[in-house]
Formats: sequence, structure tokens, C-alpha cells
Amino acid sequence: MLENLKKELVDLHMKLVENHLVVWTGGNVSARDPETGLIVIKASGVPYEGMGPEHMVVMDLDGKVVEGKYKPSSDAFSHIYVYKHRADVFGMVHTHSNYATAFAAVGQPIPCVLTSMGDEFGCDIPCGGFVLIGDDAIGKEVLDNIGMSTACLIQNHGVFTIGDSARAAVKSAVMVEDAAHTVWIAKQLGSVIPISKENVEKLHYRYTHIYGQ
Amino acid sequence: MLENLKKELVDLHMKLVENHLVVWTGGNVSARDPETGLIVIKASGVPYEGMGPEHMVVMDLDGKVVEGKYKPSSDAFSHIYVYKHRADVFGMVHTHSNYATAFAAVGQPIPCVLTSMGDEFGCDIPCGGFVLIGDDAIGKEVLDNIGMSTACLIQNHGVFTIGDSARAAVKSAVMVEDAAHTVWIAKQLGSVIPISKENVEKLHYRYTHIYGQ
Amino acid sequence: MLENLKKELVDLHMKLVENHLVVWTGGNVSARDPETGLIVIKASGVPYEGMGPEHMVVMDLDGKVVEGKYKPSSDAFSHIYVYKHRADVFGMVHTHSNYATAFAAVGQPIPCVLTSMGDEFGCDIPCGGFVLIGDDAIGKEVLDNIGMSTACLIQNHGVFTIGDSARAAVKSAVMVEDAAHTVWIAKQLGSVIPISKENVEKLHYRYTHIYGQ
Amino acid sequence: MLENLKKELVDLHMKLVENHLVVWTGGNVSARDPETGLIVIKASGVPYEGMGPEHMVVMDLDGKVVEGKYKPSSDAFSHIYVYKHRADVFGMVHTHSNYATAFAAVGQPIPCVLTSMGDEFGCDIPCGGFVLIGDDAIGKEVLDNIGMSTACLIQNHGVFTIGDSARAAVKSAVMVEDAAHTVWIAKQLGSVIPISKENVEKLHYRYTHIYGQ
Repeated sequence: MLENLKKELVDLHMKLVENHLVVWTGGNVSARDPETGLIVIKASGVPYEGMGPEHMVVMDLDGKVVEGKYKPSSDAFSHIYVYKHRADVFGMVHTHSNYATAFAAVGQPIPCVLTSMGDEFGCDIPCGGFVLIGDDAIGKEVLDNIGMSTACLIQNHGVFTIGDSARAAVKSAVMVEDAAHTVWIAKQLGSVIPISKENVEKLHYRYTHIYGQ
Repeated sequence: MLENLKKELVDLHMKLVENHLVVWTGGNVSARDPETGLIVIKASGVPYEGMGPEHMVVMDLDGKVVEGKYKPSSDAFSHIYVYKHRADVFGMVHTHSNYATAFAAVGQPIPCVLTSMGDEFGCDIPCGGFVLIGDDAIGKEVLDNIGMSTACLIQNHGVFTIGDSARAAVKSAVMVEDAAHTVWIAKQLGSVIPISKENVEKLHYRYTHIYGQ
Repeated sequence: MLENLKKELVDLHMKLVENHLVVWTGGNVSARDPETGLIVIKASGVPYEGMGPEHMVVMDLDGKVVEGKYKPSSDAFSHIYVYKHRADVFGMVHTHSNYATAFAAVGQPIPCVLTSMGDEFGCDIPCGGFVLIGDDAIGKEVLDNIGMSTACLIQNHGVFTIGDSARAAVKSAVMVEDAAHTVWIAKQLGSVIPISKENVEKLHYRYTHIYGQ
Repeated sequence: MLENLKKELVDLHMKLVENHLVVWTGGNVSARDPETGLIVIKASGVPYEGMGPEHMVVMDLDGKVVEGKYKPSSDAFSHIYVYKHRADVFGMVHTHSNYATAFAAVGQPIPCVLTSMGDEFGCDIPCGGFVLIGDDAIGKEVLDNIGMSTACLIQNHGVFTIGDSARAAVKSAVMVEDAAHTVWIAKQLGSVIPISKENVEKLHYRYTHIYGQ
């Protein structure tokens, strides 16, 4: 079931690799099927090399596995928590991408000091507190902190992004790491120059309403 | 129309990817056709994967779309501003490449402390002020600050480069990021040693008059 | 003899290259064959390009070459020391991966401040003292310092990892460098936030007992 | 003439690209043919993409072009100076690799604080003063500073390496950048621990007399 969505998710997992956001078996992408409301997510501990649709697990919003021969990702319950509480979210991504995770290791948000951050996020990328993995606690911490952003850091852990599609959440994960990288470099040079709230809002409005096709 | 130039632009966009200057749909290259005076530029928000000549938009110097089924880049009016005011410019590039953009985030020029910078640029790479994207304001800010350089940073934003061909502007974009990277690394080690104005001029003269075939 | 294990080792050496853990002829992977107890290790000074099973050397636990037309790695006696003293170890890896080796150059352990480090290592990654290469002294220094970890730095030198298979040791080498990279970036941002011993233990227990298939 | 050597040089130029030591047309490799004593070097300003044997120029020790339809590299006279004054040198490489060039931009040698540096270089990598490109002044500055090393930085400029073959000089260029990278990372963590002169000599002796096949 949901074979097209599974294939799309495999392709999107490869985007994490191509953009150097994950190593070995770390990271995962999930999607909610708009018609059935079912969630598709990577199986736990599966390597990217040789990943196929059979490594995707279909779950319902109660956390029950509907189809799939493998155990779902350890983050499955947190993904499901987010889908349950945010009807607008149809895709979610988790990575330990290096620069963004470094901000998480010091518990700092990534300040919105680049126009590309204003475009994509429209605000700072917040950092939630420390929570253990395994149940839905991370999902709750993400929603408690994410605000209007599509990305949230979790302290000592990594990055969680959401979107109106799995592809949008992957884009957010790519942009978070790119922003974290540039902001980090800039911080070694001196004081980063803030962008006024008004200009950040203008950037974000234009990007989400006029940019693209 | 202008099919060869469109194909060349697609190839040059791929150079941005190969040189790690862009992520997702960011960045763009444009060219002015020497015969017709028309401008060709990337469509807005188009991914690099699968990019073809059909994603290039032909515009005139009044900013009117002459051909192309997609909306042009948000930077189109700034590119056109530059072409209108600099008859010697036939190519222009915009990226958010990480190291150069970090200098832009702190509003610092990249000092000419490498012989390869003297060769290519013949001066510091200047940094213009903050301006919003969408109209031609960035183009004006670039020309107000670029001086004799082929590259200009725009505060909090990124890099704009120009050249007597699109290929030359892409080369400048590659060299800006390479220079920004090395200078940034050097600044973490201690005080970078200046090169005298006289030697910078000698380097630039030799490179632009003797180097190459 | 042991052709399958040799081929697996060639593939695992390629993982070192793909994960940017080695340059030129540096680094090596070895494995202990569970049936015969023999050790297979890379020949000394062999480039990764063109590496084949014929570049693997079979040795016994007394350090005698059992098969192979090439001299074994300079690290062979240290690998053998580890296999002799740790019956649970069936794979070992050595790299000079940049970030982890930088911690070794200042003689600092890599602190366990990331959940992914708690998962994989369950403790800080320790740093042993300076020892010369050539005999089994490095092997001894590794075992004297590694504790419950699967990875140990050797001062001024690099990284040594062990595992219950060669693949597990390669995974550890990948995760060490990834952790060193992120922790290093974080240290430039400010004070990294510790994870309590209790939470590190919970992370490590879950990862080694529940994570994966 | 010297077709095999030209092909080998093309392959070695590709190694500079694969190891991320060069961008665009920067960098070059030369070799001295042991039989004829002639020098083969890259033509000036040739891109790496599409490079073939026809882009190699054959010169004699007086700096005269013996064969080749292109102008030789701007560094040709410096390479020739080195070949003339060092009968043991049969290969030479020049790059602007980022980390090593950053040390050159602050005029600092790269201290021998890694066992892999002791292995390959047996000493610090020295940094010569500022000299203009174009004649043989860089070659002289390299030889005045290189000592027993196979690599020398030139202030504000980049890296020059030598070897008993072009391949050996390329290896040295790879190892310089790898060493510069790790040492630079380490310097941001704290004080790098020196290796005693005696141990550096032991490392270098073993590597040059026992390591490899």
C-alpha cells in the first residue's frame, strides 16, 4: 500500500545523504498520506545504501503498524505526535546535521541574520530542551517550541523539521544546516548584524507568496 | 530563441552545484546576448536537478519577459539594472555561498591578503549595505560598491559577481568563496599579513594580461 | 583463503574513503575470522584506488603471516594485541580522521554531549598517551584507555576503534569523526551542555537493546 | 614526445581535484623525465575539466619550450629553478589548498604535532617569505626554506611540494593540506602537544625505510 509515497520517501532519504545531513543509519523522513491519513516512516536502523520501499513502515495515528516487515524508527511516536496535533503538517524530518546540532549542543537558537533565513523560516530557529528519545516526548518538545518556524532544534540532540509535504520538510532540513553553517562561520568573524523584525517579515512574505512558480 | 546561450547557462548553473556554492533552489546565473542585447536568466525557485533550457527566461532591458513559460528569478530586475548601467558586463551570478555570506553577515569586506585574490580581483571584495530583494535595489547597491572588483557582498544576504561573460562571472563566484574560505581560516590563526597595494596591482596586471592562453 | 572476509574488508576500506576518514594510503581495517581465529588486515602503504582482496594479509595471533604476498600494515601487531586480549573483538579500524585527530593533538577526550554519542559510545571517547608505532605498544595503550567505549584516541596520532565485527568498528570510526566534528563546532559557540550520566546510560541501553531490527 | 609522462601528469592533476586541493584553473604539477632531463608542466590557465596530454608543455632546463602548442604555467621558471638546483627532485606541485594557504597568509609554519607529519615530512612545514610570481623567484624562495621537508609554504600565496617523482610530490601536497586541516582544528581547541625531535626522527625513519612494500 501507498507505494508511490514510499518511493518518494526513499528518494527524499537520498536527499539527506546528498546534502551531507546524515551518516550511517542516522536521520529519518516521514510523510502523512492526505487521503488515508496514514503515516509512512523509515524503519529503525536501516542504512541508506540499498534502501528501498520495503524499508518504509506504514503506521496509523494511534502508533499501530499497519504494514511493513520492519520495526519503525525510534522517532515514530514523536512524528505521530506532531501529525496528530498539527493538521497542516504532512512531512517531518530528523537529522543530526553537524552545524545545527552544534547549536543544539550549546542550547542556542540559530538567529535569523541571513535573508535566506528570513525567506525560509521568517524567524530564529528555536532550540527546545533535553528530552529522551523513544516515546512522543520529542514531538511534544518540538511543538512546544517551534512557533511559526518549520524547524526546531532539540538540546544535545539534533534537528526536527516539518512541512506541508515530506519534500518541504526535507528542504527545511537542508536550509537549517546551510543557515547554521553560515551563521556559525560569521560568529567566528565578529558580531553578526541583526535584520529588523519588519524586514524579516517582508522577506518571509515575499518568499512564501511571490517566489517560485 | 537563444538556445545555445540557454544551454550554456544550464551548464554554468551546474558549476555552482559542483563547486558547492548553492543549495536547493538558491542562486542564479544570467547572461546578456551580445547580438540582441537580451538577457537570459534562471526561472524563480527552480531546482538544479533536472534543470534544462526551458527553465531559462529571456527578458529585455526594460524587464519585460520576451520568452519563457516560467516567472524569472526574483533577482532579475537587479541583474537588468547592472546590465543597463555597465555596458562591459555580459554575465552575472548570485549565490549564498557559506564563507562569503558569513563575511556579509558581519558586514565585512574580504581583505585582499592572498596572491590569488590579487590575481583575480585586484582589490578587497567590498560589502554593500542591507537592501530588500524584489526590485532593482540590490543591483544599484552592487554597482555603488563594486568598484573595480568583479564581486560584491550584500550585507546579511550573499554574493553578486559580474564578468565579461557568464562563465567569467561564475569563475568570480568560485574564486570569492575560495578566497573567503582561506581568509576566514587564516583569521582564526592570527593576524593576516597585508599585501602592499603596489604588489596587488602587479599581481592583477600579470594575471589579466599574461596568465592563460 | 578467507576470500569472503577479504572482499568484505575491501568494501569496508571503501567506506573509510566515502566517509572522508582517510587520505592517500592512511588508515586500515582488520577482522578476526570467527572460525579459524585468523586475522585479516590491509597490506602496508596500499592506495585505496585499485585495492583488491590480494592486498589483504592473513596473520595468526602470534603475528606470523599465514598468507599474502605483501607486508602487513605497520599497525598489525597492535591489532593483534587487541584481538589477543579482547575475545569479544572481531574488527578493528585505524584512521587519522581530521576532527577526532585534532582532539588527539591536544590530548583531550571527546566529551559525551550529544545523544548520538550516548547512543553509540555510552561515555566520553578517551584519549590515550603518546606511543610510537611499529610494535604492539599502540594496541596496549588502546586497551589501557578504551574502557567500555568502542573508540579510543591516541595522542598526536589518531583514532582506533573496535567492534564485534569489522563493520561495527567501521561504524564506530564514522561516528567518532561525526561526533568530534559536531562537538568541535559547538565548542566554538560556547559551553557545551553536559548530559547526565544517568541519561547517557539510558540512551546507550536503548540504542544497544531496542534500536535497529 | 614523452607521451606516457604527459598522461601520468594529467592523471595526477586529477588527483589534485579529487583531493579538493584546487579550484577552477589553479594549481599545477610538473615532472622531470629521468632519461632526457626535460621538464613537463601544465599549460597556463587550463581548466581541469577536459584536460588532456595536449595541455602539457615540454621545456628544457634553460626554460625553452621544446614541445607544446600552449604557453607553459606562470610557475614554470620556478619549477625549473628547483629542478636545476636539486638533482634529486623529479616532481613538483603547486596548490592554493585552503588550510595550508591560510597558514601562509599569517606567515606561520605548520608545526609537526601529528605522527602522520613526522612520518611524511620529518619536520615542521616551513613558510618562505613573500615573492612575486612570474620568474624563478618563488623557486629560489622554496629552496631557501624547504630544508629536509618535501613541502614549503610561500607567504600570502600557497603550497609548493617536491618529490622523487611527480606522484610523490602530489602525495606531499595531499598530506600538507590534511596536516594543515587537522593542526588548524586542534589549535582552536587549545595548545597542541609537541612531539619530541627524537620521536619525530624515529617516525620519519620508520616511514621512509620500513613502511610500504
